[in-house]
Amino acid sequence: MTQPEVSLADIRAAQRRIAGSVLRTPVLESPSLDETTGARLYFKCESLQPVGAFKLRGASNAIEARTSEQLRAGVVTHSSGNHGAAVAYAARRRNLSARIVMPRNASAAKLAAVRSLGAQVLLCEPTLAAREAMAAQVASQSGALFIHPYDDPYVIAGQGTIALELLEQVPQLEWLLCPVGGGGLASGLGVAVKALRPDIHLIAVEPAAADDAQRSFAAGALAPAAAAHTIADGLRATLSARTFELIREHFDAIVTVDEAAIVRAMRALWQNLRIIVEASSAVPFAAVLERSIDVQGAHVGIVLTGGNVDLDALPW
Amino acid sequence: MTQPEVSLADIRAAQRRIAGSVLRTPVLESPSLDETTGARLYFKCESLQPVGAFKLRGASNAIEARTSEQLRAGVVTHSSGNHGAAVAYAARRRNLSARIVMPRNASAAKLAAVRSLGAQVLLCEPTLAAREAMAAQVASQSGALFIHPYDDPYVIAGQGTIALELLEQVPQLEWLLCPVGGGGLASGLGVAVKALRPDIHLIAVEPAAADDAQRSFAAGALAPAAAAHTIADGLRATLSARTFELIREHFDAIVTVDEAAIVRAMRALWQNLRIIVEASSAVPFAAVLERSIDVQGAHVGIVLTGGNVDLDALPW
Repeated sequence: MTQPEVSLADIRAAQRRIAGSVLRTPVLESPSLDETTGARLYFKCESLQPVGAFKLRGASNAIEARTSEQLRAGVVTHSSGNHGAAVAYAARRRNLSARIVMPRNASAAKLAAVRSLGAQVLLCEPTLAAREAMAAQVASQSGALFIHPYDDPYVIAGQGTIALELLEQVPQLEWLLCPVGGGGLASGLGVAVKALRPDIHLIAVEPAAADDAQRSFAAGALAPAAAAHTIADGLRATLSARTFELIREHFDAIVTVDEAAIVRAMRALWQNLRIIVEASSAVPFAAVLERSIDVQGAHVGIVLTGGNVDLDALPW
Repeated sequence: MTQPEVSLADIRAAQRRIAGSVLRTPVLESPSLDETTGARLYFKCESLQPVGAFKLRGASNAIEARTSEQLRAGVVTHSSGNHGAAVAYAARRRNLSARIVMPRNASAAKLAAVRSLGAQVLLCEPTLAAREAMAAQVASQSGALFIHPYDDPYVIAGQGTIALELLEQVPQLEWLLCPVGGGGLASGLGVAVKALRPDIHLIAVEPAAADDAQRSFAAGALAPAAAAHTIADGLRATLSARTFELIREHFDAIVTVDEAAIVRAMRALWQNLRIIVEASSAVPFAAVLERSIDVQGAHVGIVLTGGNVDLDALPW
């Protein structure tokens, strides 16, 4: 085992660094959902962050940890979703230029959201390879700092700050569930939770249609990703070697849920918590609702990761 | 002027009494809505209360202030909306029987919500007179305690606790905006705010299609109500003599907004705050969005009163 690149100390440092930039998000409970599921559920509402997603934590930490000299040429990233807006927002707070590489087929709403935060949008072909190539080119030509959506120790440490807050807010926690896509969130939560409370059961949940994390976890080696067709568009990314190692070391299980279960869970969260969560956010709760894991009578934390949806295209 | 029946001391007593029963709701901010409006907005999210509405405060206070002997025969109220669910919820916490008189044409979802909280639903003709008559009859025959939706000092004091929290959460507050229907919320806020911070501008907002409060305020006497056809169904009630006096004493102005503005404001809140608010909740923000009041550069609190909507019948 190699030395972990993200430690509890890194996450504590991230917490101090981003305290002024991110919201200490509330934890909501729902008597009706507790009744439905038989568990005591605690929803950590990262969807209420200013850009509507936990991604603001990692992006803010990656920027705030750097000197002005390191940020002289601004920042660059590639993203079709929340990470791009998070980098744009965090960059603006520090008066930095931000370039966000986005696929040509991104929705007009997403492009407008990033531009309204003062970032420059660079359009590329809608493939991962094209995005990565363009971002790398911009970084090398301009000297801008590249901030990867998840394969970055600062980003992972930033996401881990969610666990520090949640353990203070709900000290009786026995389980913690999160969605997994690229694995930055799960990695950060894993390091923090297992350092502070190794007794807590850690479960990552992903769409069955994007199950590379589960296949990798089962095989004990990073599995090749297949094309992911899921409504949970924030979870189409695949683990990196770094996030796979951190998740394998700290998580107890990876569970999958089908598309219909995700939509049912999403609607139940809207109806009962009265907050807007995107499909990716509903994935862990879907596993509870479908009884894919047995959490009867237990205190269960669930990270609601984001709340950016197209209100004209709801899936029900 | 008669002696006010609700004092700051009553509101402080309510706060201690209901602390274990209601959520200290979070205050959300939105950089994008601040940019759109030119004000610094602080949204007090009562829509996140367990039953999805501030009504839980007043109902809880009305019940918790009573002795077991006074509650021996349970409680009764009439409501087509959030007050009924709030009374049912607060009664169940104390193992009391609750009877909720509801109009025959209430939606299946609303009837189911009240029944799922363990209350008995009594159906009546869909008129205010029929509701009031049936509730009065039940109270006199059964000895159950009647809890009026707003014309009740305990209910008003309970709603006033919102102001105590908000002034702690946002000490720099300069304006406070709330919707007005029957006036229980506005009455409670008025007493608390003007006792503690008489410098704060207090504005009540109502739909132009249900403008009895504005007409009463302008005339200096309780105006007769007309039939109200507004999407803001929580604001169709009319002021009582008690709530009118308290509002006239404490509020600086009453402003109206039209139906289209309410829908625009509702959607802007969903999109930018990523929470679900019902049309009634969006009414004060509509006044800011339409620039019906000039709050440029000011610190403005807005009470978001409820989040119960039919997700299959959104108004856009």
